[in-house]
Amino acid sequence: MSSLKGGFTLPGESGKEELTLELAGKWGADVIRDSDGTQLSPRLLDAGYDIYSTICVIRDHNTWAKAHPDCLQQTFLCTKERIAKKGTLAIRLMEDFFEKQFKINETPEALSYMQVYDRTSETLLSGDVWDYKDGRVLLHDPAPFHAYTVSFLCYRIWEEINMYNHETNHWTSEPLLPIDPRKEETRDFLLQWMENWCQTHPQTDVVRFTSLFYNFVWIWGSSEKNRNIFTDWGSYDFSVSDRALSDFEKERGYALTAEDFINRGNLQVTHMPPTQHKLDYMDFTQKFVASFGSKLVDIVHRAGKKAYVFYDDSWIGVEPYGPYFQSIGFDGIIKCVFSAFEARMCAGVPVETHELRLHPYLFPVGLGGAPTFMKGGNPTRDAKEYWRNVRRGILRQKIDRLGLGGYLHLVQDFPDFVDYMEKILDEFRKIRALHDEGTVWTYPITVGVLHSWGNFRPWTLSGHFHETYMHTLIHINEALAGLPVGVRFLSFEDIRGGVPADIDVMINAGRMGSAWSGGAAWQDAETVASVMKWTWEGGVFLGVEEPSAVEGYYDVFRMAKVLGVDEDLGARVCHGKPAAAETPEKGLIPEGTRLIARDNVYLTEEDARVLAAVDGRPAVVSHGFGKGKGIYLGGFQYSPTDARFLLNLLLWATGKGMDNKYLTDDPHMECAYYPASKMLVVINDSAERRETDIVTDDGTVHTVLDADETKFISLGNTSDSQEQIHGTSGIERQDKD
Amino acid sequence: MSSLKGGFTLPGESGKEELTLELAGKWGADVIRDSDGTQLSPRLLDAGYDIYSTICVIRDHNTWAKAHPDCLQQTFLCTKERIAKKGTLAIRLMEDFFEKQFKINETPEALSYMQVYDRTSETLLSGDVWDYKDGRVLLHDPAPFHAYTVSFLCYRIWEEINMYNHETNHWTSEPLLPIDPRKEETRDFLLQWMENWCQTHPQTDVVRFTSLFYNFVWIWGSSEKNRNIFTDWGSYDFSVSDRALSDFEKERGYALTAEDFINRGNLQVTHMPPTQHKLDYMDFTQKFVASFGSKLVDIVHRAGKKAYVFYDDSWIGVEPYGPYFQSIGFDGIIKCVFSAFEARMCAGVPVETHELRLHPYLFPVGLGGAPTFMKGGNPTRDAKEYWRNVRRGILRQKIDRLGLGGYLHLVQDFPDFVDYMEKILDEFRKIRALHDEGTVWTYPITVGVLHSWGNFRPWTLSGHFHETYMHTLIHINEALAGLPVGVRFLSFEDIRGGVPADIDVMINAGRMGSAWSGGAAWQDAETVASVMKWTWEGGVFLGVEEPSAVEGYYDVFRMAKVLGVDEDLGARVCHGKPAAAETPEKGLIPEGTRLIARDNVYLTEEDARVLAAVDGRPAVVSHGFGKGKGIYLGGFQYSPTDARFLLNLLLWATGKGMDNKYLTDDPHMECAYYPASKMLVVINDSAERRETDIVTDDGTVHTVLDADETKFISLGNTSDSQEQIHGTSGIERQDKD
Repeated sequence: MSSLKGGFTLPGESGKEELTLELAGKWGADVIRDSDGTQLSPRLLDAGYDIYSTICVIRDHNTWAKAHPDCLQQTFLCTKERIAKKGTLAIRLMEDFFEKQFKINETPEALSYMQVYDRTSETLLSGDVWDYKDGRVLLHDPAPFHAYTVSFLCYRIWEEINMYNHETNHWTSEPLLPIDPRKEETRDFLLQWMENWCQTHPQTDVVRFTSLFYNFVWIWGSSEKNRNIFTDWGSYDFSVSDRALSDFEKERGYALTAEDFINRGNLQVTHMPPTQHKLDYMDFTQKFVASFGSKLVDIVHRAGKKAYVFYDDSWIGVEPYGPYFQSIGFDGIIKCVFSAFEARMCAGVPVETHELRLHPYLFPVGLGGAPTFMKGGNPTRDAKEYWRNVRRGILRQKIDRLGLGGYLHLVQDFPDFVDYMEKILDEFRKIRALHDEGTVWTYPITVGVLHSWGNFRPWTLSGHFHETYMHTLIHINEALAGLPVGVRFLSFEDIRGGVPADIDVMINAGRMGSAWSGGAAWQDAETVASVMKWTWEGGVFLGVEEPSAVEGYYDVFRMAKVLGVDEDLGARVCHGKPAAAETPEKGLIPEGTRLIARDNVYLTEEDARVLAAVDGRPAVVSHGFGKGKGIYLGGFQYSPTDARFLLNLLLWATGKGMDNKYLTDDPHMECAYYPASKMLVVINDSAERRETDIVTDDGTVHTVLDADETKFISLGNTSDSQEQIHGTSGIERQDKD
Repeated sequence: MSSLKGGFTLPGESGKEELTLELAGKWGADVIRDSDGTQLSPRLLDAGYDIYSTICVIRDHNTWAKAHPDCLQQTFLCTKERIAKKGTLAIRLMEDFFEKQFKINETPEALSYMQVYDRTSETLLSGDVWDYKDGRVLLHDPAPFHAYTVSFLCYRIWEEINMYNHETNHWTSEPLLPIDPRKEETRDFLLQWMENWCQTHPQTDVVRFTSLFYNFVWIWGSSEKNRNIFTDWGSYDFSVSDRALSDFEKERGYALTAEDFINRGNLQVTHMPPTQHKLDYMDFTQKFVASFGSKLVDIVHRAGKKAYVFYDDSWIGVEPYGPYFQSIGFDGIIKCVFSAFEARMCAGVPVETHELRLHPYLFPVGLGGAPTFMKGGNPTRDAKEYWRNVRRGILRQKIDRLGLGGYLHLVQDFPDFVDYMEKILDEFRKIRALHDEGTVWTYPITVGVLHSWGNFRPWTLSGHFHETYMHTLIHINEALAGLPVGVRFLSFEDIRGGVPADIDVMINAGRMGSAWSGGAAWQDAETVASVMKWTWEGGVFLGVEEPSAVEGYYDVFRMAKVLGVDEDLGARVCHGKPAAAETPEKGLIPEGTRLIARDNVYLTEEDARVLAAVDGRPAVVSHGFGKGKGIYLGGFQYSPTDARFLLNLLLWATGKGMDNKYLTDDPHMECAYYPASKMLVVINDSAERRETDIVTDDGTVHTVLDADETKFISLGNTSDSQEQIHGTSGIERQDKD
């Protein structure tokens, strides 16, 4: 098996041709890629490898952009509140913002979208009580000690990824301007440019788009101490413009306003349930992105090349599970990954090729500025850690390719990294081969994760784990990504008329009011009754943190009668509550599980069973409801142990039992079974040597794994299997290669 | 001074006449009281002491009550939710409730108030889709898997204090029925009974009412494991009846419904802001209680006796700061106390005599069933602890009398308690004399505590400290009760048109949505602008926990621009936030102060100063706003040290400086200065020996106090004072008695 090659994309480095070709051989690469802004030398282009070329279509056209300043991308901004005292209030619009990023759009079309709000009374001011002049709004007769804001359209004069790299790495190159394909001139220019690009890159096999047109929102402020004002990897703010707004109005029959984006200064974060206006605008934008994106992809295809999307940065409107994604025509998706959930998100996208760009990036510094490929760095440790996370996901669903990014020469000082990468790639290819031979075994349990976005945003929330760790659901998704169960993502629309028949366990997890808990969706009586009915008839409703929570009803958790717990927002502080006396279930909660209890969450039903409590507050609660069950967790934080706890809960709540087959008896280890190959893959999720028994249909397997090890054990080719079936610590059966 | 006598009420015990009279002498009593249900013997009645007699007017009339079952007190109850499945849903109304406490009121008038709600859709069902029969509601065609409740009027067939004592102490006497003076027959009966009572109690000097007619709400459930369904010491549920509702409708011109009381199962807890319907009903009830209460007091007065109210149990509508209280005509108020805030609440009531009923109660067991006057108990320790709490309040405002309650013979086995009480009483009389000579010295700082109830509920929230400890404000009130500053309680009405000129610091403290934080009152733009203006012009707004918090605006804390912090309810999770870097202020935060930071509270202003942080979250923040300042505390828990922290904050924020006069330099000690007497009273709030320097206008005083000690130091009668003024550790000047 280790002789298998391919499935790996190497970042080539011109001037380091020997190293590039040596590592291509050692790591079994079949593709060499360039990076944004670099070019591969003829020797590399001609070395017999497939070639990926990276492009980011909306930047790197500064000459054209400067000649067409009205074609720059835009966004809405809203000043901070200004408190009026006596007399005229002058508000300088750019006071709060980074002047190298934004420039007020002073065209009449854009100014017509300007809004001045009294935020104390939360009322929009009529246009005749204020004037805009020279970057300021003058408010003539404000109410004393009321707070005012101005929302306005501005051009974005620095593409944000370029800006970030510039500012972080003290680059001196000219800032790149982002151009907006909403304008016909831009589209014409880009089509021509794309044609030309294809003609001038005959050796490129795959065009790697990063991603299409609109970056996730990233608003910088005027304060050097506090540059980041707003970032959200899923928000659409950077796709808006006066043209987009007028096109929207024509297409949808109603006008959006600045406040639809500004939303009382909150902006429209992905972690909160969308308004209908936002949903309409997203759909409008997705359609546009897909429509023009497909034209570029068509050019690529006509040039005999493939088009892959590197799903990062300018990914707004490119959501790969969205309704228009397939119409773009991408042949592959490349996803940079730190976590298992990202591997699963990539693996399920309806394209031919699924590639993961591994970490660490070949760069001197890594996440948060920590040293990687430099003195003080330990890239092998980092690689092990990321692989430990990602591997669980790859075991569950097929990934076609892996890749790296960055400067290849940096690995020269880290030979152990070079060796470790070879090991990872061998493991990956073995796992890929198993997927090719047949489907991985899972328990007959389908989990439906219920949230506002449903399958439009499966697995990921908005960005990577380290950007979304404060949301409970990402911890649950990360756990699920490596568990031997089926997983689906459900929107409230999906369950309103009845929960789909294949769902065994429904998970709803998050803060009250968030997109992950569901917010106002739980006001709908039909939704509530639908989940009640489904649970009563045998479903398991697993609620975490503030599930189904919404104000204004008898219960705060609308599933309180199912869960047996509710949250007191203050109105029930004088109500009696049953004591949370613990009645543990043997084997359910592995040692080391992080139990989390919330203040003000209390038992509502005397027959609710507290499986674990923290300081007298319920942390894990089970409550029978008809033939079904409610399970409540105060919180959940991902770790291998906590993932096992979640799996135990799923098995226990659905009556499957926790002493089950294809389970390691050490929660720091996991296994995946491939029936077609009769191959058991055991992984050690920890940095210590571990051992486990695993009950299989072919007997109990005992095995010992080194730290981080992946072991392939064949269950099919031993003649003495009869003997081992009954042994409680059967001898270890190694794979043969 | 120790020869002073009087100001003390002793509980007499018949059969223990010798002991009673001996202790009356030792403790300097001038009054002997009976207890509810006991009678003093002729020897005690004739011993030359004033006599208090305890009455609770609405119980102890079982013969009459049984003959007038329609005159029993009532309440609304609401069943728990019942989930409909298929076909008719039958709901047994009493299933959730203690059948010895309640009986469904089946009169047509009462049944007309019955309401059936669909709690899933939160809609009231029309009367033609359900029937009531034999204690059940039959709902003919419910929506499957919707939850339903029934709200109904019932008679209360066991007066709750009697019920509690019965059940707790296994009494065997006949349960007492509570009668309702809303009915004219009841009023006629009670007037006659009161006349008769006065005639048959010629030796009574003071009739001690407990309190008037309606007990605080205390709903018991059917489950023995979980009897307490709802208790709130301030709620009006037990004053309602079909008669009260029809009278209300006549008087106010609109009808109340069951849901006005049931409030989606929450009921109307004092800790939440009142609805206008609730305020109307409270006013209606207060007027009635005062009107009929004054008739009983008139009878007492005509009999030549005084009428004191023991402010406990049936105190609904008797709120001593309410608009009708003075019209009742009480001559005194007696308040049982555990805490300083209760002493302050009592001291400010507009009556002639203010008496505190001290703890421990002379009973074998005390709070929470802990032993007191029995084996294993330590009543002296308990008395010290309570006195340590209460003494701080008595130093700040005059209390006229102290008293005890319970069975006097129990003290016989605890001679140290007898001695300690003598000491307490001597201290008390000395303090009282100082108040008589002139006002206690305070800093020129007036604190306004802002909440929904304002001066209608000053100091107390709803019950004792140990019943309300989960509310931050009671901790603040307890701290303020002993601090040398002026304190007022403000409602939102009081500040809407402008904050009163004498307020230097405004405190708003509590959970979002609670009566203490203010809830929807903060939606009002005029209120917000009023507090903004006042702060800008020099006020200090001190916000604790979730001050001024309400949803639906640009800021969650409406005072965010003042405080420099806000709370993220989820919508701002992707907003950048200034780092909470600590810049401590020397001397501001005493060692041992309990710093509390809240999840999701973040800095909004870069110029906000983080005085203390916990795990990177802001705990104490100061922010300049015009000439004024915002101060934010994540929380506050009372202790002597934390009280000193609060005082330091008040001094520092108002620019008074923390190295100030009449301050102990040990935060476990406090002092009060009485300029008219030139007397400094120093107290040790701890159980250890402590020493302190105190800067006074007559020099620095150094003194050492034993655990719990109270020391009276005269600053006026030494001839060598000149020398001591300049000493940093001037010799100790003891009081002379």
